[in-house]
Amino acid sequence: MEDFYLDAAFSKEEFKIMDLKLCTLILNDNKLFPWVILVPRRNGVKEIIDLNRDDQHLLMDEIALISNLMKKIFQPKKLNIAAFGNIVPQLHIHIIARFEEDKAWPNSVFGGEVKPYEMFERDLIIRKIKNEAQ
Amino acid sequence: MEDFYLDAAFSKEEFKIMDLKLCTLILNDNKLFPWVILVPRRNGVKEIIDLNRDDQHLLMDEIALISNLMKKIFQPKKLNIAAFGNIVPQLHIHIIARFEEDKAWPNSVFGGEVKPYEMFERDLIIRKIKNEAQ
Repeated sequence: MEDFYLDAAFSKEEFKIMDLKLCTLILNDNKLFPWVILVPRRNGVKEIIDLNRDDQHLLMDEIALISNLMKKIFQPKKLNIAAFGNIVPQLHIHIIARFEEDKAWPNSVFGGEVKPYEMFERDLIIRKIKNEAQ
Repeated sequence: MEDFYLDAAFSKEEFKIMDLKLCTLILNDNKLFPWVILVPRRNGVKEIIDLNRDDQHLLMDEIALISNLMKKIFQPKKLNIAAFGNIVPQLHIHIIARFEEDKAWPNSVFGGEVKPYEMFERDLIIRKIKNEAQ
């Protein structure tokens, strides 16, 4: 099987949370919002419709799995889920926990303020998500 | 079976395109982007994870169906797909055809400029999508 190539935007080892069956789950480096990204490990895929139907259903299962995790851990007012890819073409799905008190509510977080994690904060949130997944 | 209640934000009859098995498809009233919205006809559902697994898969099938239609009709550079719901709580999924020449590229269209359709333009685009779906 061909090696999977992860775009440089997603390949920092210290932001990787875990591998699911289809997707690699990473933490987005913006501590203003609990925000993770699912990247299906299929080369050359830019759109959800570039996946075959089985993979599309598996992607939905993993979106649901991670949505449930995010809901349980962070108890957000709302989950925001999005596949854009206008800038980084490799298919990736954002899952963001939103709160009425957050920096952007009720607007979209895209194109807004970014505040990178301190190393200890990043490791803490990754551990939290990993623990909940077990 | 209980009647389905469509939020006032989605219930203008003249913007309805068609009913799929799970979702009602409507045109978003912003002619700056080819932009449609899928609304699953299930009462009380705010998150994708409020749907049961069969409905989640059916939703993915309908996202793929409409993505393929949008790609065929508009030949966009990229499709943008998103479920937010911070403002209108009823679960709805945006599918937007994006172009390098559009008003917001490569940024998100959310929170940006809105230009309502003229009646004839609206009817034309709805007819186009309906015809392609047959």
